[in-house]
Amino acid sequence: MNLREFGGERALIRRLARLPKSKNIIAGIGDDCAVVERTGSPLQLYTVDMLVEGDHFSRVYFTPYDIGIKAMESNVSDIAASGGRAVYGLVSLALPDDITVEFLDEFYRGMRDVADHYGCEIVGGDTTHAGHMVISITLIGEVSRAHLKLRSMAEPGDLIVVSGRLGGAAAGLRLFQNGIAGYAEVKRFHTAPHCRMDQLDCILPLAKAMEDVSDGLASEVRNICEASGVGARLDKNSIPLCEGIVETAALLGDDPYEYALYGGEDFELVYTMSPAKRVHAYGTIVGEIIAGSGVFLDGRKLERFGYDHFAERG
Amino acid sequence: MNLREFGGERALIRRLARLPKSKNIIAGIGDDCAVVERTGSPLQLYTVDMLVEGDHFSRVYFTPYDIGIKAMESNVSDIAASGGRAVYGLVSLALPDDITVEFLDEFYRGMRDVADHYGCEIVGGDTTHAGHMVISITLIGEVSRAHLKLRSMAEPGDLIVVSGRLGGAAAGLRLFQNGIAGYAEVKRFHTAPHCRMDQLDCILPLAKAMEDVSDGLASEVRNICEASGVGARLDKNSIPLCEGIVETAALLGDDPYEYALYGGEDFELVYTMSPAKRVHAYGTIVGEIIAGSGVFLDGRKLERFGYDHFAERG
Repeated sequence: MNLREFGGERALIRRLARLPKSKNIIAGIGDDCAVVERTGSPLQLYTVDMLVEGDHFSRVYFTPYDIGIKAMESNVSDIAASGGRAVYGLVSLALPDDITVEFLDEFYRGMRDVADHYGCEIVGGDTTHAGHMVISITLIGEVSRAHLKLRSMAEPGDLIVVSGRLGGAAAGLRLFQNGIAGYAEVKRFHTAPHCRMDQLDCILPLAKAMEDVSDGLASEVRNICEASGVGARLDKNSIPLCEGIVETAALLGDDPYEYALYGGEDFELVYTMSPAKRVHAYGTIVGEIIAGSGVFLDGRKLERFGYDHFAERG
Repeated sequence: MNLREFGGERALIRRLARLPKSKNIIAGIGDDCAVVERTGSPLQLYTVDMLVEGDHFSRVYFTPYDIGIKAMESNVSDIAASGGRAVYGLVSLALPDDITVEFLDEFYRGMRDVADHYGCEIVGGDTTHAGHMVISITLIGEVSRAHLKLRSMAEPGDLIVVSGRLGGAAAGLRLFQNGIAGYAEVKRFHTAPHCRMDQLDCILPLAKAMEDVSDGLASEVRNICEASGVGARLDKNSIPLCEGIVETAALLGDDPYEYALYGGEDFELVYTMSPAKRVHAYGTIVGEIIAGSGVFLDGRKLERFGYDHFAERG
């Protein structure tokens, strides 16, 4: 059923407003603002991410449920990268005419399954019309001062650690783009990524600077280096690759390490930690923070970094 | 200069991150999340609005500065309608290829002028690419429990008051859509609206239920009625019309009261108040809350309400 037949924007808001609410949420979806009574830690985290159909997801490759999963996981990942917990979410959507109520129900089910898993409550949003689907999710999180992880907290001598395997999301996208059948497990890295919020308790006692891998390892390490006023060296062979992507790369004539370094959307965490705690490292050590500036891969200075939504166009 | 020549997304973020920050903002634009130390009142307000080029604004009718004004004023208006103050903002943008750095600088100047005026600080955001421009602004506000205004707070016998004149935004849009030259002051109601945050101190001691007029008076009054379980009667002739729109309506063969009732985007406040305080009403009394249900205009029950982004399409 299309949204006009369903009763339009108001019917949609009414459906969303019917969800159960926590008792500290005084007003949720359906008033001018969401109103919440604050509790917990004194530091608030705010993050927003916009996903555009065609650039970040496709209604051809993704089920509506998976679009919801990816939209919410990628946002929760930013809260995890700051060392915090996601508490509230606001979802604003631009929807094209051919979106159905069934599509939206599945999309919301995906978002809500992820939000519920992480203890995050969707308290508000906005819906409007556009030529293609645009999703903007704002998350409000909380973090204690002791757990706060900023990009600027790295120091020379720190180890650089990734929480898991990389490159799967880019490999999956390449399979879709080349119209290749099969390889369902590699494609899932692209359509249904999961962030590392659940591993945070293991990482927080170790991590100094931290980022999530949304734009590729090279770009995230550069961000840490620039914010901390340091450099980094990465060992290419130590970068852990997602299962199956060596085969995918061979099939497509690609280098699988390019997926890991420049592909992004893997949503693993990359963090720096003191070498004194090396034996406790959670994940895989891929390099080291050095004095100076620049990111070096096997001794060669990187000039190219992750995906840029404007630089790689035109 | 286009964004690719300027250095892409990173150069844009660097430019935005250079803005001065308040001392309780631990990390602003440029990290995974904005990090702020909370102060002030215990109730938090969260609101988000998405503006889509073509549906909500046009790069033909609007200067980039005015797009920034309207985007921010319309969001601050939602915080005002809840009785609170805007404290922090997050701006996520999807930008088409032909947007220039000069356009963005002007757009941000507009947003920032409004945010500064209301004491709101832009602490984060996201930029990405799309076929047309999409703006999603999230505001975080604060309100004391005594000042909180919800839609559900109206009671039979309450007066319905609007804070100022209505219909200008719709009249201005009609002039643009019909390609009519002149009438600059009426067109400004559409391109550079201002919300009523500055009048809030006068209204808060009176108001019970409150809304901002984003979708037309009829729709806002219906929202209050449905949330409060009451009805309303409106007196058409008492609705205050913006200056110049009677002439605009005559020129275009329209009814100027239709602009006020169904047009929206005027961003005046509409609130209910006890009749015992009638002499203190701030604005114009346009009707009364009644027991029962439905919104009646001069005794006739309304079946049509404001703009719906889906219902009026196709």
